[in-house]
Amino acid sequence: MAASFDSGYPPPLTSEQSDYLLSNIRDWSILNGLAVRPSSSFVSEKIDPSRSLALTAPVTLFPSLFPRVCFDEARAIQTAYNELYASIANDEEWLGEVVKELAEVDDFISNLWDVHQAVKKEGYVQDLSLGIFRSDYMVHKHPSNLDAKPEIKQVEFNTIASSFGGLSTKVSALHKHLLSISAYPPPTLPFISDSSLPPNPSISSISRGIAIAHKAYNRSRENTRLPLCTLFIVQDPENNAFDQHALATNLLTDHNILTFRLPFSTVLSHTHIPSDSPFRPLIYTPPHSPNTLYEVTTLYFRAGYSPAEYTSQDSWKARLHLERSAAIKCPSILTHLAGSKKIQQILATPSSPHLSSFLSSTSSAEYIGRIRDTFAAIYPLDDTPEGQYAISIATDADKARGYVLKPQREGGGNNIYGLKIPPFIKSLGNDSKKYRGHILMELIEPPALRNSIFRNGDVKSGEVIGELGVYGVCLWRHGRGQKEEGVILENWEAGHLLRTKGRESEEGGVAAGFGAVDSVCLIDV
Amino acid sequence: MAASFDSGYPPPLTSEQSDYLLSNIRDWSILNGLAVRPSSSFVSEKIDPSRSLALTAPVTLFPSLFPRVCFDEARAIQTAYNELYASIANDEEWLGEVVKELAEVDDFISNLWDVHQAVKKEGYVQDLSLGIFRSDYMVHKHPSNLDAKPEIKQVEFNTIASSFGGLSTKVSALHKHLLSISAYPPPTLPFISDSSLPPNPSISSISRGIAIAHKAYNRSRENTRLPLCTLFIVQDPENNAFDQHALATNLLTDHNILTFRLPFSTVLSHTHIPSDSPFRPLIYTPPHSPNTLYEVTTLYFRAGYSPAEYTSQDSWKARLHLERSAAIKCPSILTHLAGSKKIQQILATPSSPHLSSFLSSTSSAEYIGRIRDTFAAIYPLDDTPEGQYAISIATDADKARGYVLKPQREGGGNNIYGLKIPPFIKSLGNDSKKYRGHILMELIEPPALRNSIFRNGDVKSGEVIGELGVYGVCLWRHGRGQKEEGVILENWEAGHLLRTKGRESEEGGVAAGFGAVDSVCLIDV
Repeated sequence: MAASFDSGYPPPLTSEQSDYLLSNIRDWSILNGLAVRPSSSFVSEKIDPSRSLALTAPVTLFPSLFPRVCFDEARAIQTAYNELYASIANDEEWLGEVVKELAEVDDFISNLWDVHQAVKKEGYVQDLSLGIFRSDYMVHKHPSNLDAKPEIKQVEFNTIASSFGGLSTKVSALHKHLLSISAYPPPTLPFISDSSLPPNPSISSISRGIAIAHKAYNRSRENTRLPLCTLFIVQDPENNAFDQHALATNLLTDHNILTFRLPFSTVLSHTHIPSDSPFRPLIYTPPHSPNTLYEVTTLYFRAGYSPAEYTSQDSWKARLHLERSAAIKCPSILTHLAGSKKIQQILATPSSPHLSSFLSSTSSAEYIGRIRDTFAAIYPLDDTPEGQYAISIATDADKARGYVLKPQREGGGNNIYGLKIPPFIKSLGNDSKKYRGHILMELIEPPALRNSIFRNGDVKSGEVIGELGVYGVCLWRHGRGQKEEGVILENWEAGHLLRTKGRESEEGGVAAGFGAVDSVCLIDV
Repeated sequence: MAASFDSGYPPPLTSEQSDYLLSNIRDWSILNGLAVRPSSSFVSEKIDPSRSLALTAPVTLFPSLFPRVCFDEARAIQTAYNELYASIANDEEWLGEVVKELAEVDDFISNLWDVHQAVKKEGYVQDLSLGIFRSDYMVHKHPSNLDAKPEIKQVEFNTIASSFGGLSTKVSALHKHLLSISAYPPPTLPFISDSSLPPNPSISSISRGIAIAHKAYNRSRENTRLPLCTLFIVQDPENNAFDQHALATNLLTDHNILTFRLPFSTVLSHTHIPSDSPFRPLIYTPPHSPNTLYEVTTLYFRAGYSPAEYTSQDSWKARLHLERSAAIKCPSILTHLAGSKKIQQILATPSSPHLSSFLSSTSSAEYIGRIRDTFAAIYPLDDTPEGQYAISIATDADKARGYVLKPQREGGGNNIYGLKIPPFIKSLGNDSKKYRGHILMELIEPPALRNSIFRNGDVKSGEVIGELGVYGVCLWRHGRGQKEEGVILENWEAGHLLRTKGRESEEGGVAAGFGAVDSVCLIDV
């Protein structure tokens, strides 16, 4: 079936059609845990002090059109991406060079590196590392070439706290359910069908990743007699907890693995490493059952990724404490660092040799080329020839139009778009350090799409932008020292996510309040 | 394992234990649709005009202790109960006599009978009838005989809108889940175990009942070419809709049967019976898709049972319209009438021959005796010897202590307990009609139990009373005329429900605001 983005999809709804669609979304979502806790601006703490209320997670009414060729390509290259980032995490020396360069503009990166150095000095006791990654893409259509085929361009690669895998399976199922109960009116039928809505096993596939780490730990451990558990290191409060609960429930029901949730801020109070054990097991003492100690096999971080979470020296102590333990980290500090923006920029700088060197031992030049094709050009603002080229663009209103300026620092926000770039650059004066604190990235030009977003009980319709995430699971053994290379033990593509936001909002992030979880409706374009 | 009711179950919880238990209840319930919409007194319409918020259904923190022998007996006799009520619904002549007697005190019953008479006059076109029943019991322990074994005594038998089958499977699963994540502290372990928490298939088993009716209709229908559906006739708004959604979802996923929800008040607007069809198919026109007509196979009433719902002549027109259609009714008017309190009273009057006569063709005297053992004695307040005996009790403060006076009218409420009975009788004066408007029922004396109820974010702990419901599904062919007897086609026990309320509240009813859904923790006493 050939269809195009501008064929009037989705159709307008009568008020009766809209009522039917929305009431089914409201009900099915709660029946199936596609839910969030309301923000305090929606329901005040006074009304619900125990935080018992929930509501439909922000979702789109329709699955968004997405080119099948782009979807297939994003999935096809995920295992190569997993391998790429595992290789980077294994190359401590190279990572160290990058961090050294960044240190002066980014304390956070530099503090993470210090944690790694401290554990390295003492000696790591766990050489297995688990990655639950998500590579995020937008569809790019060259604005001035109407015949150009759509391609995927990477927005970012997440190596820590890759979220929404728990809700994503469910929103795919929601849209299929709405199809099955005839909630999509006939004009949608050339688009929405069983074959255009692909299965999405993100919950089971990501959980299986945690399960294989758990089992690998179990095989390797010394003869302790404690019961085993995995720990989800979480933020508190967490409105998006149902996303995480879906994984924990799957671990229990499909793998018989017990999971506890531990707020990052309470790590030091409830875990310890026995001082007499060279293996350094991480022992968790549940507050509700202080006489039952658990040995932690796997630490799944859904917190600790944002500089704002490190509020005191104790936060860094906690991170060090976890890193030096025998638990398998998802991710390790080195894997966390591999996901920093700076790494993406280095790989995507047009003349960079690094992509090939990280993948050449296992991947063909053709395959490496396909990875490279997903990069939007990214430039440093420094003294290199690429940097000088970038500065010439960033200071020229006409050329800057197709670019975005991003801070090197982790933590999101503060992107400068298009025409706003030259005056911003001017405001930096001649401070080359401030220049180096930013990267310049080619703007991706996604096709114009329409959809409606249901959020906090309201519907907003209009032009939207979709961002496809593909999950990847990778378990590997870190190489230690110069001679020993890392070994990848497991590596698979693990489902996908579509997030959709109103075109007017420049910053993404569903939990941050701008977008919605969505599913793909594949079209052949 | 022998245990007793007074062994300190459930144990007190530390605040950490309580936090862990409650946070898991709050999260698991939303993840699995064990939910209700909040009442407007909890969340005002202003805050959530689209009614998108939901919260944990009222549940108990622990499964309540329940004697295994009582549980087994209640389940064992359910198919006999199903047959009993199907036989009553088939005996139109006998029902007519009962209604005639009631007519002067109960317009509602009399109006229902008129609907039946009108359809009978025209001729019924559907002779299949579906019952989804629930027989409710309390455990009774003779207060003055400490050695007496606990027995079950029937509170009522529901033939219409037997609710909570959708939540009941889930609360059983919730308590099992809490056990599996060690949320129940060690002192509970002599009680709570995998073997003391029985499986509860109410969702799948009740849905299967609707599915067999749907399929039976399909086999019998003339050659229409319309798509088929089942209709849930519902109240609007309905805070307990998730209970119903669980059944509708199961019908779709396990039986590929499409269900629509239709508020009772809108029946006449959205359904019709083609005037030219002698088969009288009920045609549903969904407001969201007015060009797609559906033929309704099965009408599942979750509304229309309370006099308060019949607000105008149109309500009765709607009920007549549905009854005369070819759709299989769950329940038919005659089945609805069979569930009236008066019938229960007639069966349970100690000298009554009716129980035996309804069951003697298929059941042994021993089996009939087991049914009779579940009756608490019920007396009319009339001129019969039983009636005179009852009046002598009701006017004597000392004897009345062990009784409850209930209005004959349907619709609940206004029960008069124990010591309050004699002054109430006095207030009736000498009006024998007002006397006949009531029945006197032996009070059931349930054992003292403790539990905690989580409701609207609050926990209340204390003495509670449990009420066990056993679901039954029955599909039968009505006998027409004097010679043709009814034939039971399907008959099974369909899961169970435990509802628990604070001992201080005299009226039951979870949705009404006093109680919670619970599950049984079986004990051998």
